[in-house]
Amino acid sequence: MTVTHPKGFRASGVAAGLKTSGNPDVALVLNDGPDYTAAGVFTGNRVKAAPVLWSQQVLKGGVIRAVVLNSGGANACTGSQGFRDTHTTAEHTAQILRTQKKLMVGPGDVAVCSTGLIGELLPMGKLLPGVTAAVKALATDGGPKAATAIMTTDTVAKNAVFQGEGWSVGGIAKGAGMLAPALATMLVVITTDASADNETLDKALRAATRVTFDRIDADGCMSTNDTVLLLASGASDRQPSLEELTAAVTEVCHDLAQQLIGDAEGATKHIAIEVKGAASEADAVQVGRTVAGNNLVKTAFFGNDPNWGRILAAVGTTDAAFEPDRIDVAINGVWVCKNGAAAEDRKKVDLAGRNVDVTIHLHEGEMNATIWTTDLSHAYVHENSAYSS
Amino acid sequence: MTVTHPKGFRASGVAAGLKTSGNPDVALVLNDGPDYTAAGVFTGNRVKAAPVLWSQQVLKGGVIRAVVLNSGGANACTGSQGFRDTHTTAEHTAQILRTQKKLMVGPGDVAVCSTGLIGELLPMGKLLPGVTAAVKALATDGGPKAATAIMTTDTVAKNAVFQGEGWSVGGIAKGAGMLAPALATMLVVITTDASADNETLDKALRAATRVTFDRIDADGCMSTNDTVLLLASGASDRQPSLEELTAAVTEVCHDLAQQLIGDAEGATKHIAIEVKGAASEADAVQVGRTVAGNNLVKTAFFGNDPNWGRILAAVGTTDAAFEPDRIDVAINGVWVCKNGAAAEDRKKVDLAGRNVDVTIHLHEGEMNATIWTTDLSHAYVHENSAYSS
Repeated sequence: MTVTHPKGFRASGVAAGLKTSGNPDVALVLNDGPDYTAAGVFTGNRVKAAPVLWSQQVLKGGVIRAVVLNSGGANACTGSQGFRDTHTTAEHTAQILRTQKKLMVGPGDVAVCSTGLIGELLPMGKLLPGVTAAVKALATDGGPKAATAIMTTDTVAKNAVFQGEGWSVGGIAKGAGMLAPALATMLVVITTDASADNETLDKALRAATRVTFDRIDADGCMSTNDTVLLLASGASDRQPSLEELTAAVTEVCHDLAQQLIGDAEGATKHIAIEVKGAASEADAVQVGRTVAGNNLVKTAFFGNDPNWGRILAAVGTTDAAFEPDRIDVAINGVWVCKNGAAAEDRKKVDLAGRNVDVTIHLHEGEMNATIWTTDLSHAYVHENSAYSS
Repeated sequence: MTVTHPKGFRASGVAAGLKTSGNPDVALVLNDGPDYTAAGVFTGNRVKAAPVLWSQQVLKGGVIRAVVLNSGGANACTGSQGFRDTHTTAEHTAQILRTQKKLMVGPGDVAVCSTGLIGELLPMGKLLPGVTAAVKALATDGGPKAATAIMTTDTVAKNAVFQGEGWSVGGIAKGAGMLAPALATMLVVITTDASADNETLDKALRAATRVTFDRIDADGCMSTNDTVLLLASGASDRQPSLEELTAAVTEVCHDLAQQLIGDAEGATKHIAIEVKGAASEADAVQVGRTVAGNNLVKTAFFGNDPNWGRILAAVGTTDAAFEPDRIDVAINGVWVCKNGAAAEDRKKVDLAGRNVDVTIHLHEGEMNATIWTTDLSHAYVHENSAYSS
């Protein structure tokens, strides 16, 4: 059910004291090979955390042997000291893997991911012993512990798996706030025992994230630390086609993305915004994202209010192709708006459940896209007004 | 203190029963001349309410004799019937002004503004008698009543005045939510007894709104109904220069804009985001707006949390010219971030008061801009989750 489901991987999660709660906060995922190919996608934010800058460099080397992840601190906006700390973390991880596990690993083979508060240096005196303990705890069934150790405000650990014929894909994820287009605030590690070169992995991962993580948006805020890594061990000795691999990775990414939205901070609704009849996929995505990011739409759903007028007002701020008097909107199957004006009685809309399906038909073409989002609730305000202090 | 301060204007506000509360909901502002020149700016939303489409047509005629405004219904997303209703309202207003006041007014001289819930037809059976009553109630001291009649979720009526030498500018405004760039959700009527042609009025109004209404953002949501009208009576017989007129109109717009932000739904903070050292004014405005619209920044301020990391993460999503390691951020005068990393102790920041001043220095050039916004509070969620139902 997790990153240690595919053959050739070990993982662990330990408590190093970065979190004041004493919960696990350092995770490690190790690729035992025989392959060490990898791909990654990172936040579109121009303010990138030190571990993002580091892991982008590691990927250029073409090999990832291990991913070390910490919660309890993002190591973002921490200047040159922050980058040195990430470098030290990778060096320490490689050194312990060499000395304790007799593995030929260099610091340039170790990706680093951090999550937590922005702007504070990591307590390296706690982190490095935590890494040592995480190496010691590595196990072929350690995936769930790794998933737990990367949680921040997540209420549940997030794991997923795709089982192919003789090969598989597994994943772990964290993320509950700062979820937005161009990658949600998330750390994701995906593993596969398929055999694939870096270019194939990169294509599969980009195709998968484009229609999954890039299409969820909890609060419109883009993180400094978003990282999705895909590691292949080749241990199954199977070589799926690009299409098969893409489908498998997409399934795991979709599963994890839905878990992220399902656990988004303070959310009481899980909202799918399907845009149909768009002139282009880009138009469909833009309309969906704009509606998903609109605070008045989100508060309306929190109040169980099928306020389609706010949806139209949000669509109107996009530059997608549409005519205001041709738009139809359905909420949970009731076409409350036809041709840009009121249609079926909004009282027919049942919003009592957690799931909300919004369909926006632009009648401009054949392209569709779905964006998943949440409502804006008192609990969101509470969690985010009390996070760092 | 209001639209009837300049000579040559009458106004009124009456209760027509559009609001279930029984509060005043129909306002009228009449220009008694001798000039009837005018200018207007309207929402950038492509989904425009019927009264916006109508008033844009009226302005093309170059004359506005009267502005009739209603709260209790936006008449947006109401299809062709909605447009016919706006037309009928203008015709009725003109007819009553002709028959009751013996004024030569045609429907094409009457601008219409509506505000309230989107997607429902106006109760014309209540509105038209309300217009008749509003004509009857017209008075040279009626501005405050007009300001009251256009309130929706506003908690206070909004009036402003600029007194020149022998001439003046007055204004009324409503708006408390859906406040965003490219005009907040607002109806604003500004009057002056200066003498100015339409082109001069248009230049003055656009210059004024660009640095006032266009730089406030309460919740990032752009309305379907935003309208700012400037009417000149020429009754003072003074002809200020374009610069003088622009300065005066800007002062009134700034005053009203600050009143709008000060009364924004659920706000507990009045936040000024000053962006300095930008390479261009457009960069400064983009950075300011992006930070102002970030829910994590807004919830942090609600929680009295000087979370500058969220500010940097928001800046990072713009395409303005900046280097992450050169940005400085001050909150209420404390430089909590220097060169993109922690500087002065965030505990020094006093956020106990209502006013918050954020300074973001990009160190890229000489251009500055200030955006005014609010925090994101429980009260915002409450008001907007319960508005239409």
